[in-house]
Amino acid sequence: MINIAILGFGVVGSGTAEVLTENKAIIEERLGKEYNIKYILDLRDFPDSPFADKIVHDFNIILNDSEVSIVAEMMGGSHPAYDFTKAALMAGKSVVTSNKEVVSTFGVELCAIAREHGVRYLFEASVGGGIPIIRPLINDLSSNKVTKICGILNGTTNYILTSMRDKGSDFSEVLAEAQKLGYAEANPSADVDGIDAARKIVILSALASGKLISPKAIYTKGITEITLEDVACAKEFGYTIKLIGYTEIKDGKVFAFVSPRMVPLSNPLSTIDGVFNGVLVSANMVGEVMFYGPGAGKLPTASAVVADIIDIIANMDFEAKPIVWEEATEEDLADFEGYECRRMFVVEGDVPCGMPECKTKAVNGMTACVTDAPMSEKDANALLAKLSDKAVSAYRIL
Amino acid sequence: MINIAILGFGVVGSGTAEVLTENKAIIEERLGKEYNIKYILDLRDFPDSPFADKIVHDFNIILNDSEVSIVAEMMGGSHPAYDFTKAALMAGKSVVTSNKEVVSTFGVELCAIAREHGVRYLFEASVGGGIPIIRPLINDLSSNKVTKICGILNGTTNYILTSMRDKGSDFSEVLAEAQKLGYAEANPSADVDGIDAARKIVILSALASGKLISPKAIYTKGITEITLEDVACAKEFGYTIKLIGYTEIKDGKVFAFVSPRMVPLSNPLSTIDGVFNGVLVSANMVGEVMFYGPGAGKLPTASAVVADIIDIIANMDFEAKPIVWEEATEEDLADFEGYECRRMFVVEGDVPCGMPECKTKAVNGMTACVTDAPMSEKDANALLAKLSDKAVSAYRIL
Repeated sequence: MINIAILGFGVVGSGTAEVLTENKAIIEERLGKEYNIKYILDLRDFPDSPFADKIVHDFNIILNDSEVSIVAEMMGGSHPAYDFTKAALMAGKSVVTSNKEVVSTFGVELCAIAREHGVRYLFEASVGGGIPIIRPLINDLSSNKVTKICGILNGTTNYILTSMRDKGSDFSEVLAEAQKLGYAEANPSADVDGIDAARKIVILSALASGKLISPKAIYTKGITEITLEDVACAKEFGYTIKLIGYTEIKDGKVFAFVSPRMVPLSNPLSTIDGVFNGVLVSANMVGEVMFYGPGAGKLPTASAVVADIIDIIANMDFEAKPIVWEEATEEDLADFEGYECRRMFVVEGDVPCGMPECKTKAVNGMTACVTDAPMSEKDANALLAKLSDKAVSAYRIL
Repeated sequence: MINIAILGFGVVGSGTAEVLTENKAIIEERLGKEYNIKYILDLRDFPDSPFADKIVHDFNIILNDSEVSIVAEMMGGSHPAYDFTKAALMAGKSVVTSNKEVVSTFGVELCAIAREHGVRYLFEASVGGGIPIIRPLINDLSSNKVTKICGILNGTTNYILTSMRDKGSDFSEVLAEAQKLGYAEANPSADVDGIDAARKIVILSALASGKLISPKAIYTKGITEITLEDVACAKEFGYTIKLIGYTEIKDGKVFAFVSPRMVPLSNPLSTIDGVFNGVLVSANMVGEVMFYGPGAGKLPTASAVVADIIDIIANMDFEAKPIVWEEATEEDLADFEGYECRRMFVVEGDVPCGMPECKTKAVNGMTACVTDAPMSEKDANALLAKLSDKAVSAYRIL
């Protein structure tokens, strides 16, 4: 009998208990082993829950119970989630989590502690909710060198951008609606400022490169400044605006950043709308593959958490290949000034952007210019400085 | 040192040699083990190939060499591919393959022989080319009960349907062009008649249900009768026509079949164009996830073959969970007459189809009717019989 403890009985924690219970018969049959939810840690009591008798308020009960071999950390936030994770791993318990904040900040240390103690630290649910992406990157693309990952990694912002495009409402209106529907938090900063996407892209980037970059160290721009004029310009050129987490591994250096981008309708990411997520992976042998699905939500996210629990149980008698990450240093990061891509500039009036090679279109009294050739960040910034107060907005094209 | 033999030096076989060679350094680093391509079996010699010295013409050299522990069967066709696979497994060698014909026909027996001999039989590349789909179904969705799989599983037919829609050329024109480009075989029957898709959907269906249905036992309709009028009707209603491999597991019984279907533009499969494949999986906890990528091609398919080889090497000292399939019996198959979905009927002139609840549109002198409610095969056939010679075509809606 494998005993599991769940830390945090919020949305994902209760979903995890539900998946483990609802699909218990088929999961145990697949595993040929039985499991049991022994404890659920929460500050609150849940007298009406079917799991009421599992609730404990003191983490030490779990930590000191040698029967518990798997801990599912679903608390969110850095502390005490990090501290409890570390203690559990050091006590010889494997830990699974959906907590991108902890993985992106403390992943190097926690993976190392897991290795030292012969246990596992898995985090499939930390990126892309229910979408299988982390295990496929490790196992299924193992014959490849991954060269680029770009993804729509945040459902809230994708919902907002989709509504702006399809309903013609502006950012603040759609945000208010998303908050009413429960798709956005009362304090939406982590989503709309791109912080959540930054945490996720550094995790994916580390899986591809072995180097974990601090999410705070990467260029991160959210969606708060996107206007309906920008949306109109995108449409005019056959693009749709998406918040893209991007990482490219080139000559051993990593370009990783988050920003809104013009996505051509020929790119499969352009078709991912609403709260869905999608991750497009480029690798040297397979070319491009995409993983698509629900990027959040109680049961989808719990489905990924439980897949990790199953992985741990299935491989308990076997030393599974551990995740080995290093902290990325300055050396590992490519100079962002050198990042090249095609660009769109929107300028006031009919003044063209001044680029020798670009297509221009008049949109609502402005001129939108799309460059034909890739342009570096440095050159783009120089051009914007030159355009000074005539420049309305600038976008990277995916 | 792990010794590998490749059977067949055609497109996928030579791609497999290339992936194993090109990415040798990173793969060996990931595995912490070294490997070597010891033999390549082919009837031909390849004096100019870098692998010329590996070529052998007699399978027994491989079979009798106890140093060879992994055989990659890339020959295609049923015989001798099946016979060589069986012999290799019985000799204690693991086998990986991209051969959907062998897997869909002999999979139950070959998986059983692998189990009995403590080796593995893996076939990630048999469905969806380079797209990770088989391992994700087994590992990543292990916390779920899979209820439905529908996919665009054949790149040739998807290329033809995309060209018919986008260029307005008819089936025979586009087929001829596809043959010229190498996307379709001189004898295109296996593709255009849906046989290839049927083999793939029974493999996916078996992964979800444990029961392998003979591809010959399922209803299979290809794309040869699709007209530009049908394409116009699809467009009128906001659909796109795709050849869909479909399996649904309901009350322990399986509905599996292949047919062209009207796919609403809101369905993510509608966006998969050209030679790409996509597989949409519905499962009871995660909801819907989709896997997208190149469904064929030398290096993408080889990438999946080599992922299986890596899986085998990584788990060599460990008894990996085997695949257990049974042959599906009549009992396991749901009565296809009872399969319910929404329908489109196209009738000559302005005669409506006669359904009480349907939307109709006039298209090029015909009337296209779309039912609001699901309708069984039986009822659809009865209606078609009643319409007799006025009925032009009938489609299932996805």
